Amino acid sequence: MKDLTSEVAQLVDWLGEFGKDPEGGVTRLLYTNEWVEAQKALEKQMQEDGLTTRYDDIGNLFGRLEGSKYSDETILTGSHVDTVKNGGKLDGAFGILAGILALRHLKAKYGQPLRNLEVVSFAEEEGSRFPYAFWGSKNLMGLAKKTDVENIEDFNGVRFVDAMREAGFDFRDETKAMRNDIKGFVEIHIEQGNVLEKEGKAIGVVHNIVGQRRFTIEVTGVANHAGTTPMGYRKDALLAASQMIQDVINKAKEYGDPLVATVGKIEVKPSIVNVVPGNALFTLDVRHTEKDMLVKFTEELTTIIDGISAESGVETTIDMWMDEDPIPMDPQIVDAIEKQTKEKGLNYKMMHSGAGHDSQIIAPIVPTAMIFVPSRDGISHNPLEYTSPEELAIGVQALIESLYVLAYKE
Amino acid sequence: MKDLTSEVAQLVDWLGEFGKDPEGGVTRLLYTNEWVEAQKALEKQMQEDGLTTRYDDIGNLFGRLEGSKYSDETILTGSHVDTVKNGGKLDGAFGILAGILALRHLKAKYGQPLRNLEVVSFAEEEGSRFPYAFWGSKNLMGLAKKTDVENIEDFNGVRFVDAMREAGFDFRDETKAMRNDIKGFVEIHIEQGNVLEKEGKAIGVVHNIVGQRRFTIEVTGVANHAGTTPMGYRKDALLAASQMIQDVINKAKEYGDPLVATVGKIEVKPSIVNVVPGNALFTLDVRHTEKDMLVKFTEELTTIIDGISAESGVETTIDMWMDEDPIPMDPQIVDAIEKQTKEKGLNYKMMHSGAGHDSQIIAPIVPTAMIFVPSRDGISHNPLEYTSPEELAIGVQALIESLYVLAYKE
Repeated sequence: MKDLTSEVAQLVDWLGEFGKDPEGGVTRLLYTNEWVEAQKALEKQMQEDGLTTRYDDIGNLFGRLEGSKYSDETILTGSHVDTVKNGGKLDGAFGILAGILALRHLKAKYGQPLRNLEVVSFAEEEGSRFPYAFWGSKNLMGLAKKTDVENIEDFNGVRFVDAMREAGFDFRDETKAMRNDIKGFVEIHIEQGNVLEKEGKAIGVVHNIVGQRRFTIEVTGVANHAGTTPMGYRKDALLAASQMIQDVINKAKEYGDPLVATVGKIEVKPSIVNVVPGNALFTLDVRHTEKDMLVKFTEELTTIIDGISAESGVETTIDMWMDEDPIPMDPQIVDAIEKQTKEKGLNYKMMHSGAGHDSQIIAPIVPTAMIFVPSRDGISHNPLEYTSPEELAIGVQALIESLYVLAYKE
Repeated sequence: MKDLTSEVAQLVDWLGEFGKDPEGGVTRLLYTNEWVEAQKALEKQMQEDGLTTRYDDIGNLFGRLEGSKYSDETILTGSHVDTVKNGGKLDGAFGILAGILALRHLKAKYGQPLRNLEVVSFAEEEGSRFPYAFWGSKNLMGLAKKTDVENIEDFNGVRFVDAMREAGFDFRDETKAMRNDIKGFVEIHIEQGNVLEKEGKAIGVVHNIVGQRRFTIEVTGVANHAGTTPMGYRKDALLAASQMIQDVINKAKEYGDPLVATVGKIEVKPSIVNVVPGNALFTLDVRHTEKDMLVKFTEELTTIIDGISAESGVETTIDMWMDEDPIPMDPQIVDAIEKQTKEKGLNYKMMHSGAGHDSQIIAPIVPTAMIFVPSRDGISHNPLEYTSPEELAIGVQALIESLYVLAYKE
């Protein structure tokens, strides 16, 4: 364990130098120089660890330890190499580095696996440079299409296609069959929440990734002079909106975990200190591990909002512009991870992921599971993102145990 | 009355041509060409009506009908000639035009008054070009100082001082004594609210201009990931703010008229759809005709906000950045106006003004009263601002009756 702790600390700091941002944290956007350098460095590291490396067409990087018996069966681990702007050193990166370390230790201790073991450094997950997320895992699964990205540009007007070719990659051949050797995928990731920390747990064994629905609610009342319009003559859009926010969020609290509901944005018009707002627009993000509950809560919030709207004499529209189903992890792999984690005496918690990950792209096609390590104060996408090397090492240990069961056992 | 209706309609349309904005409505900002042309046209009109005209140093325009008996006593009427950007044809302008018409009809019917009668076209009230309001009436009362404006600029970087001199005016001599002949001031204005319209009244006799307090409330919670932070682990600044808005406004409704409370602006940070807001900032505008009630409501809202803040585990600051006392109108003039209005069978309502006017600057020094006419849908500061010529004419009639009592009676 002491070795693992210093090894993981060293690797995290090392990879964090690629794209280190003078404004803080790490900025390693898809197909930039920083990204290219990071992939090259990871490729070299994988080779030094005795892995056979290759890139796919679009730039996902794989390092492989050949299986002795089931050459057509591969167990995959890894995560994404890209970051948000001014992100942390762990989000994505830790999953790749933990994979390299796990393979290093498994090979050292147990030699060749029965099944191929591969670590992947996915090209992209965040959607931070171009308006497209999960480019890496969606290509591996054959879900990303050329037409999805051929007309998109980054914030500087650089075309996706040009950036990709400049970095030395190109579209995959969409007529070619996809890989069918991948029999399992395990991704380790920082929690990006504060549940493990608050509950004093070292490991989260993830059984589900939440589904989410996102709404924009627009309330239209009448803008009036703040001084000359008596309270009884108003149709105050913000007053109605604030009651909606109150009642919907309090209803979410009544439902309790794992339901979460968040109003992250609100804007009023005309937004003048002495004018009653005639218009209020707010967003609502709702997540749950069960589709049925998302549907039920959507009905509930619609009833609440429509009721307040009618009472207040304002007009309200509810626009649902995102509707993603929950993604359950594979029960057998989850069980195997839980069993190993328990046997090794690791202090774990069965939990869901409230955030999206590459695993949600892969899980509908390949048996998939996730392992979480704590995030200090729940902070991520921020230079303050932090997990101690000791906690990271426990995570790597859990990953080692999981991959051992999947790749070394009959 | 038929004459008055067509006369007022003609004058309103005529003055509305000065500063007519291609983007809609009227834009007649202090010391612009449009403003200069409007004052010159009004000067000419006053002269055609047999009034003696003069400008004061800063550009307030006066038209005078000499009194036969009390040459050291002047009854003043009028309002401001400037508008907001894309304002209406009536706000301010109607008060000047009604004054000209009133003097025309009084002179025609009763000849020379006992006291001097003057109509004023105040240079500025809105604070729309430069960050300074009531420049006109504050100069008449000796309240505006050179130092207030000598370093201010408009949105194009033009200095106040340069704009004033360019228009042909300059600072008043602050060492000179102010006029002490003004014994009464009556301002007629559109209501800029919807009370008269809703209650089917033709005239508002104003007994008080509300005091107002303005606050900025800042709520600091913790920004968290919307997916990975269970409801119980949040300190949602917007959730707390929306409860504050709800409870403070509902408390204002409990108080009832004439209290009004308005949250016109709200901003959250980081303002991202999937992040729990860590910060929420909103404004609060509170008005009442009695200072005591403003003080009491301030205590009440502070208790409400502090209570919600403590319960929600957020930090909150309340900053009161405006505190203006209510300005009572002169009871004797108000009584005289009410009596005349009643005698003439005009359908009137005793009311307060919820908006600020030149009258509030003058009232603490000179006995002052205001008359309101209805505003369609309560709309002002907008090209849609409208009062029918018939309603305007009833207003002019009420002004004539009021000025008659003040200037023609012993």
